[in-house]
Amino acid sequence: MNGIVTLLTDYGTADGYAGEVKGALLRAAPGLTLVDITHDIAPGDVAAAAWVLGRTWRSFPEGTTHFAVVDPGVGTARRALGAVAGGHAFVAPDNGLLSLVAGAAALEAVELGPPEGASATFHGRDVFAPAAARLALGAPHQILGRPVSDLVLMARPVLRREGKKLIGCVMHVDRFGTLVTNLAPGDLPRTPRIQAGGRDVPLRMTFGDVPAGTLVAFVGSAGTLEIAVRDGRADVQLGLGRGDEITVES
Amino acid sequence: MNGIVTLLTDYGTADGYAGEVKGALLRAAPGLTLVDITHDIAPGDVAAAAWVLGRTWRSFPEGTTHFAVVDPGVGTARRALGAVAGGHAFVAPDNGLLSLVAGAAALEAVELGPPEGASATFHGRDVFAPAAARLALGAPHQILGRPVSDLVLMARPVLRREGKKLIGCVMHVDRFGTLVTNLAPGDLPRTPRIQAGGRDVPLRMTFGDVPAGTLVAFVGSAGTLEIAVRDGRADVQLGLGRGDEITVES
Amino acid sequence: MNGIVTLLTDYGTADGYAGEVKGALLRAAPGLTLVDITHDIAPGDVAAAAWVLGRTWRSFPEGTTHFAVVDPGVGTARRALGAVAGGHAFVAPDNGLLSLVAGAAALEAVELGPPEGASATFHGRDVFAPAAARLALGAPHQILGRPVSDLVLMARPVLRREGKKLIGCVMHVDRFGTLVTNLAPGDLPRTPRIQAGGRDVPLRMTFGDVPAGTLVAFVGSAGTLEIAVRDGRADVQLGLGRGDEITVES
Repeated sequence: MNGIVTLLTDYGTADGYAGEVKGALLRAAPGLTLVDITHDIAPGDVAAAAWVLGRTWRSFPEGTTHFAVVDPGVGTARRALGAVAGGHAFVAPDNGLLSLVAGAAALEAVELGPPEGASATFHGRDVFAPAAARLALGAPHQILGRPVSDLVLMARPVLRREGKKLIGCVMHVDRFGTLVTNLAPGDLPRTPRIQAGGRDVPLRMTFGDVPAGTLVAFVGSAGTLEIAVRDGRADVQLGLGRGDEITVES
Repeated sequence: MNGIVTLLTDYGTADGYAGEVKGALLRAAPGLTLVDITHDIAPGDVAAAAWVLGRTWRSFPEGTTHFAVVDPGVGTARRALGAVAGGHAFVAPDNGLLSLVAGAAALEAVELGPPEGASATFHGRDVFAPAAARLALGAPHQILGRPVSDLVLMARPVLRREGKKLIGCVMHVDRFGTLVTNLAPGDLPRTPRIQAGGRDVPLRMTFGDVPAGTLVAFVGSAGTLEIAVRDGRADVQLGLGRGDEITVES
Repeated sequence: MNGIVTLLTDYGTADGYAGEVKGALLRAAPGLTLVDITHDIAPGDVAAAAWVLGRTWRSFPEGTTHFAVVDPGVGTARRALGAVAGGHAFVAPDNGLLSLVAGAAALEAVELGPPEGASATFHGRDVFAPAAARLALGAPHQILGRPVSDLVLMARPVLRREGKKLIGCVMHVDRFGTLVTNLAPGDLPRTPRIQAGGRDVPLRMTFGDVPAGTLVAFVGSAGTLEIAVRDGRADVQLGLGRGDEITVES
């Protein structure tokens, strides 16, 4: 392990919870390098957290530990997980947050037991941070708990065919109003007709290929089709959001 | 000292003030480890800053320096402080921000003189950051200024008794809408009847003990009574905020 | 170079883009020290980014590398730059973002070519981060691309004279509602009459020189005239924002 620990939560920063987690990590292992991914996931939005974790984890060098805690089920029977995949380590609640990691690399998980004296409502500090510190220091995940083989996984939105139409959906709307879809380049016919919100969207290489204010589709930085407006917001112009349909015909 | 400096401000990040402070710290001591607690305290909300500092400082290892600057009185006669408590060091304006630290550990403070050429309106960069860097490098606080024995302390909301009723209050509302109170477990009768916003709130161990959408009281991660709604917001459901009363009877 | 890399973007953090950039930097050079300046520049607000970079870069020790990417023109013909100035290194799009740096120190820039396989829409991760890592590791900027001598620079708002009046403008409105102007102390007559939003504003040393709720002008921490309201917001009280005029007469 390389001593890097990334942090991904829905805690915000203004309550001090993210600060307490950082303190707990550094108290357990003062030499760690902490890297904020975000604390601004919408409260309880596990799908958004899974999306961001899915995008970011592989950007980091092998040996990185990822603390990913968006945990609306804290204080219920949901399990707390330690895991390894692709040479990285993870701690996360067992609520689907690791779905995209597990979809991209073989993942082994264990159930973290709560340490003596752990609070019932702040497992980020009391359960996940100590486990993340141990993983970051090189502890094998197997010693942290019993193996879990029936991980909770989010249903992955699948592409649907209706006659000549291929129907995907918006997986994520980013800060710029761009719609990131689950349609990969390999799914598209040679001369695709892309429709979103009742509008035809031309497929181009990038923004520069259309005038300002205009809709454009391109293969984005996550490797899937994105729909954007140059110098504008596609979510607003099309009235579309997460889960909405995007249609492709030849 | 361990070279860790935490940062807690109401600067936001978009103006560059937090960035200038980080630069000033690293210019004074390039090897420091900077850790953001938050820059999102509401402008001038000293009580919220004191709360977050009170929660977070002890999470960090001994030898940590805490830069805590929410300073609506900058440019007035309020004093600038350097301090030590419980093996940690602090810089903060003398406006009550250190109240909860001083309530938890013996605190010694000195008044920081403004360095030559300091601006009159950005003491974070020009007064507090240089002092924090010196403390983090191991300078004894006594050499930074004259002792202060009459620290400004916020009045601590005290519990009140009215007949059989014990009346506490909401100290903090967190991002999830949970109400953190000043009622400790030891204050509660054996079978307490907890009332908030005119509603009875059952005391349980944690969220999992009530159905979704339901009010629940539990001893939270700060060691005091909290009132929450499972998968919801107690502040909205009860119409309560900071300072509002919570009542307990047996 | 000192291994410090600062980050200044309009990415927010909730989409994972800032996280991917951090990962790319650490994968290229695991020992780097990453320092967030901000990810909260308003989407596409190059002028605000230039302002924040102009304030912050010199606070850091010489040898620091600054990753500054607010890039509404990504995917168009705008150039990607690597640069050095004043002993610091920079990566930024060629859209004016480096204007204030270039105004303060001799700047040499090169055009970064996109690495093989770079996405067309996420140059922060694929073009700027690898170049920043190389600069931070000590690569001379000249080897990163061809020299650029016709940098895009923002028009700098100049002071205007109308009879006895000197007319400047608001360069930035900060989180506290304070108006930062482009009027330097040397521009002011001995006994200036300062007018903003139709109101006279007294020139003082700092906040403490006026009662709460009152307008005050002072020479701020950026070395120029600022207009504020003690314990209030000047932007709201005066109805002024970025670009609005501030007038001085003797």
